[in-house]
Amino acid sequence: MTDTAARVKISAEVDQHLDAAAAESGTTASVDVNGLNDLLMGTWSDIRRTAREFAKDPALHRRDGLSLEEQRERALGQLHLLVENGSVHRAFPKAVGGLEDNGGNITAFEELVTADPSLQIKGGVQWGLFGSAIVQLGTERHHHLLPPIMNLEVPGAFAMTEIGHGSDVASIATTATYDAEAHEFVITTPFRAAWKQFLGNAGRDGKAAVVFAQLVTKGVNHGVHALYVPIRDENGFLPGIQGEDDGWKGGLNGIDNGTLAFDAVRVPRENLLNKYGDVAEDGTYTSAIDSPGRRFFTMLGTLVQGRVSLDGSATAASALGLAIAIRYGNERRQFTAGTDEEEVLLDYQRHQRRLLPRLATTYAQTFAHDELLRKFDAVFSGAEDTDDDRQDLETLAAALKPLSTWHALDTLQEAREACGGAGFMAENRLVGLRADLDVYVTFEGDNNVLLQLVAKRLLTDFSSKFKNADAGALAAYVVGQAAEAAYHGTGLRTVAQTIRDFGSTARSVKELRETNVQRELLTDRVETMISELAGRLRPASKMSKKDAADLFNSQQNELIEAARAHAELLQWEAFTRALEKVEDAGTKQVLSWLHDVFGLGLIEKHLAWYLIHGRLSPQRAQAVTAYIDRLLARLRPHAQDLVDAFGYSQEHLRAPIASGAEAVRQEEARAYYRDLKASGNAPVPEKKKR
Amino acid sequence: MTDTAARVKISAEVDQHLDAAAAESGTTASVDVNGLNDLLMGTWSDIRRTAREFAKDPALHRRDGLSLEEQRERALGQLHLLVENGSVHRAFPKAVGGLEDNGGNITAFEELVTADPSLQIKGGVQWGLFGSAIVQLGTERHHHLLPPIMNLEVPGAFAMTEIGHGSDVASIATTATYDAEAHEFVITTPFRAAWKQFLGNAGRDGKAAVVFAQLVTKGVNHGVHALYVPIRDENGFLPGIQGEDDGWKGGLNGIDNGTLAFDAVRVPRENLLNKYGDVAEDGTYTSAIDSPGRRFFTMLGTLVQGRVSLDGSATAASALGLAIAIRYGNERRQFTAGTDEEEVLLDYQRHQRRLLPRLATTYAQTFAHDELLRKFDAVFSGAEDTDDDRQDLETLAAALKPLSTWHALDTLQEAREACGGAGFMAENRLVGLRADLDVYVTFEGDNNVLLQLVAKRLLTDFSSKFKNADAGALAAYVVGQAAEAAYHGTGLRTVAQTIRDFGSTARSVKELRETNVQRELLTDRVETMISELAGRLRPASKMSKKDAADLFNSQQNELIEAARAHAELLQWEAFTRALEKVEDAGTKQVLSWLHDVFGLGLIEKHLAWYLIHGRLSPQRAQAVTAYIDRLLARLRPHAQDLVDAFGYSQEHLRAPIASGAEAVRQEEARAYYRDLKASGNAPVPEKKKR
Repeated sequence: MTDTAARVKISAEVDQHLDAAAAESGTTASVDVNGLNDLLMGTWSDIRRTAREFAKDPALHRRDGLSLEEQRERALGQLHLLVENGSVHRAFPKAVGGLEDNGGNITAFEELVTADPSLQIKGGVQWGLFGSAIVQLGTERHHHLLPPIMNLEVPGAFAMTEIGHGSDVASIATTATYDAEAHEFVITTPFRAAWKQFLGNAGRDGKAAVVFAQLVTKGVNHGVHALYVPIRDENGFLPGIQGEDDGWKGGLNGIDNGTLAFDAVRVPRENLLNKYGDVAEDGTYTSAIDSPGRRFFTMLGTLVQGRVSLDGSATAASALGLAIAIRYGNERRQFTAGTDEEEVLLDYQRHQRRLLPRLATTYAQTFAHDELLRKFDAVFSGAEDTDDDRQDLETLAAALKPLSTWHALDTLQEAREACGGAGFMAENRLVGLRADLDVYVTFEGDNNVLLQLVAKRLLTDFSSKFKNADAGALAAYVVGQAAEAAYHGTGLRTVAQTIRDFGSTARSVKELRETNVQRELLTDRVETMISELAGRLRPASKMSKKDAADLFNSQQNELIEAARAHAELLQWEAFTRALEKVEDAGTKQVLSWLHDVFGLGLIEKHLAWYLIHGRLSPQRAQAVTAYIDRLLARLRPHAQDLVDAFGYSQEHLRAPIASGAEAVRQEEARAYYRDLKASGNAPVPEKKKR
Repeated sequence: MTDTAARVKISAEVDQHLDAAAAESGTTASVDVNGLNDLLMGTWSDIRRTAREFAKDPALHRRDGLSLEEQRERALGQLHLLVENGSVHRAFPKAVGGLEDNGGNITAFEELVTADPSLQIKGGVQWGLFGSAIVQLGTERHHHLLPPIMNLEVPGAFAMTEIGHGSDVASIATTATYDAEAHEFVITTPFRAAWKQFLGNAGRDGKAAVVFAQLVTKGVNHGVHALYVPIRDENGFLPGIQGEDDGWKGGLNGIDNGTLAFDAVRVPRENLLNKYGDVAEDGTYTSAIDSPGRRFFTMLGTLVQGRVSLDGSATAASALGLAIAIRYGNERRQFTAGTDEEEVLLDYQRHQRRLLPRLATTYAQTFAHDELLRKFDAVFSGAEDTDDDRQDLETLAAALKPLSTWHALDTLQEAREACGGAGFMAENRLVGLRADLDVYVTFEGDNNVLLQLVAKRLLTDFSSKFKNADAGALAAYVVGQAAEAAYHGTGLRTVAQTIRDFGSTARSVKELRETNVQRELLTDRVETMISELAGRLRPASKMSKKDAADLFNSQQNELIEAARAHAELLQWEAFTRALEKVEDAGTKQVLSWLHDVFGLGLIEKHLAWYLIHGRLSPQRAQAVTAYIDRLLARLRPHAQDLVDAFGYSQEHLRAPIASGAEAVRQEEARAYYRDLKASGNAPVPEKKKR
């Protein structure tokens, strides 16, 4: 059979299956926009709606063209507006006027990204990092510190990262040495590389900081602990403190990032945030957690909410970008093709290919994020708070945050390009959002480092041998590398043995759309990759530390890819569960296509793997692409509904190109040519000469 | 065989072949940095070196934190510095003091990207678009306009794009109607969508513009022509002219982009740039080119130099980004692994995977760009100036510009992320360069539209039937879609018939590194894709216009992918030719690895295609990845030399993270710990409890 004939046959089969499925369902594809919006708003939908309504306030919106000082002043003022609006207390203890509502708090926080990412992240520094560290790492003796933090009397910095150590927090060099005679800690920055760096609120506004330092008492280093340290009063830095301003950044310029250094700065013993480790007056160190490593990772684990909130915020930014680009793509026309009227951009296949699969991913992320948020809330509320629960939460966050933050950059860029020169204008929001979101892939855990954590969890899940080799060189290396606790639990999915024979049992193109087939293909890939990696890494336990490290390093790229595959599977599973909840038949039809575009898109992306491993025959592999093409064409008429269902209004989009102005201008041009023609004065085109 | 055993076997084979090849050559891999630099500097190396030296001047450098007005003032001032330095006359006619050196002119222009992309593009608008349009589209009667343009007395805009029409220039709506009684053209903007848009120099500085408009005389529209139109004097816009400022953009904010509209603005008949079409006093239209379509595309073709220069500039920006990230990656340490000392980032496999393949692509682009520049110079100097030559040049530019501009964004972003939070600081250059380069993928021809042009050229090459169906629906559609002339010539490569049997003839892993094997694999893919596309599109010639358009649209995505494959092949060919020129054996060794990383990287990227089409067996497909992994490890020690060979100095990099400060800080920290240990006061780590 020729290529053309083969392709025609595959496409016909695909169409036939899609038509048969549609006929069988007896419904017409159509989106109940409000109903779908309810689903997308997630578990804390009331809080999300209220926060989104609040985000319409122009006083909260990002402005282009301000000086650095003006941007910072504006962001600080916006934080005060949040305080006035009662938007910041939700996660704090009831004892100090909070609500102890962790899920609701993150939900509301995420919505701020549509107003101004600088506002969002500066608020995140103040209440989600600085204030939250005191709640999570401190004890009741620190509750008196919270009210002025909540009402912004004391803006503060979260002083963890140093110039020399970012991802590897365990190796920071700042020390907090206990002076048993003075009952004080002495905080010292020993050299330039130990300066705290990139700290929001350090450049200008911060009056205090939670400082992470190696806790030394009685000549013993007990590892990284956190202390509350005043840094500035109305006259500037306090004695012994110095700092520099980070100046202009690629985005988020409303935040006053800067450095801090400490020259034998003394704070009272009580300033140690002592939930996981304490020092008595005489200098005796105590901790409920014996293992220094486990203690460190437990402390770090309390900071997971940053990753959770970035996952949701990045997904919201992607949705916003697509809402702008798809609205514009639905109105903008360029070139004539089959008819006299110019074609709408979104009718071009390439334009669909550029935007609609990214829309499918954004839907998957939205559903996966709601599951993450619920898990987070369950753990932090204490409803599900075992070690396994916490580790599951951390793995989930470490898996989802990298994908969604990278997706945001990719989607905002594609949206920008899809809007052409207009997309490059700051007033249309896409370039500013992308610039601000850029660093979301780095902070709260570098994406590549986080995916390594996930891979390690999958490896430990896979092999109890591997897990029990804790004392061995490889595991030590893995832990060191990953800067995180050893994981337990059940992250890794397994598939039925039948998958091994899938290559021969899945005989028809139709099966590619079956949920279980997609599940098996996606699950099998993760399991096989991890199994192969475990096999290749097994010799490490008998190797020297150096050789084991080299072996591990030789597989690092594939480890990260395996983690990515796992995260994709988690997103796909969440989309699948959400789809099951949809009751409106027309919506379900459309959403099932979107779900298939996501699932088949993942398979298409990794098609070489499926072919090499014999999981798909070449013919069925071609059908994957044919399916996606056909599904995109069917989805195209519903694209506007699908972005409308995100529920953003013009006050959130704030992009002239998504305001309907394009269509108005086109109608004006049409009317002009109609009138010109009617007047009889229209010039005629030059005749073609032979 | 288990996966592990199979992989070990493949990797061993790969190592064996690499070792054997190294042994056979009898040389030690090492880079002659200066010699390689000579090769990379290209054909106009003297001019490039001089321009690069000039670009060190701090007065020309981009500054962060300036207001919009200050940025524009600075960019305008920088343009005057270019005039003073005699940097802008090179391409102008000798009759007005120019040198008529087109290749040298673009070479020098490209180097400006390291100083400030705003300066570069504002200069490009002034001399490369506005001034050049008068040279290329005007005649001697317009030469008097050039001196004040060259010396910047008359800054000007290139007024082609309209709000309603960007890619589809043929459909612009501004009219220039000849008034035979007054011997004047009347220029009119009929409605809002016809306002000229995104014009550099329109917002603030421009005193004149080359305005593209539908030329109407005696009631006939002769299509798009260009006219010289004064727009502003010291008091602001001239009567009948209005315009708006585009305000802040995603980057390039030193350029005063804006809109222009014309309310029956009159200019003398002589202001028509009349090289390709003229209007006599009585209103009679004449042109040496009978076909209005061909005339239009001939006029547009003179603007190819914008695309040529962006290809080189984007490649230079990629090289700069990699020079920064690789230098930092070579010094920055994080996490300990096999030894007590922390690992250098570039020793991590993932880090190598992130940066070194992009380095290979940047090399390929550098070599491909020099070929493009030579072709451009040959055509514009008149040395090779047939229709075929011009069309070859246009295809080459349309193929290379999209890949290199996308590559720049991708590379600068990966470099930014590879430098972590430090990469996000404006002072380290990466975010600013990326923001400025963003719109390079859109202007001078949207990348997706350009690749469609290339695809059409490949289709016409493939099938004379297709080409001769000029009057048919499909060809008309293609032309309309592509907004460009039908191509002739020899763009499409063909391969020997033996390729069909490659799947069975290439028996060993070793063959993957053979130049001819890579050539055949890459060439075959383009040819097969085009052949398949032609087969699928063939029915279009017998279809209605609407159906033909629909059929074409259903293949649009694949058409663009085929064009991309062709462009990749062109880059690979250029790299291959450049490699042949290298005489130093050690350099040749290293460069051949880099070449293979590029070639095998292309094959890896499209591995699913090779598997589906039976061109590679699953086992050999796996060997592709194994080869790349092994080659990256061998390249790693030479990474610094390979970026040093680009020849940028600290005055070009201007990034503190690439200045060596990181290594100095590390040594300071090491000395501190050495002294602490020697003092006997170092705290001991907490003992692990069981």
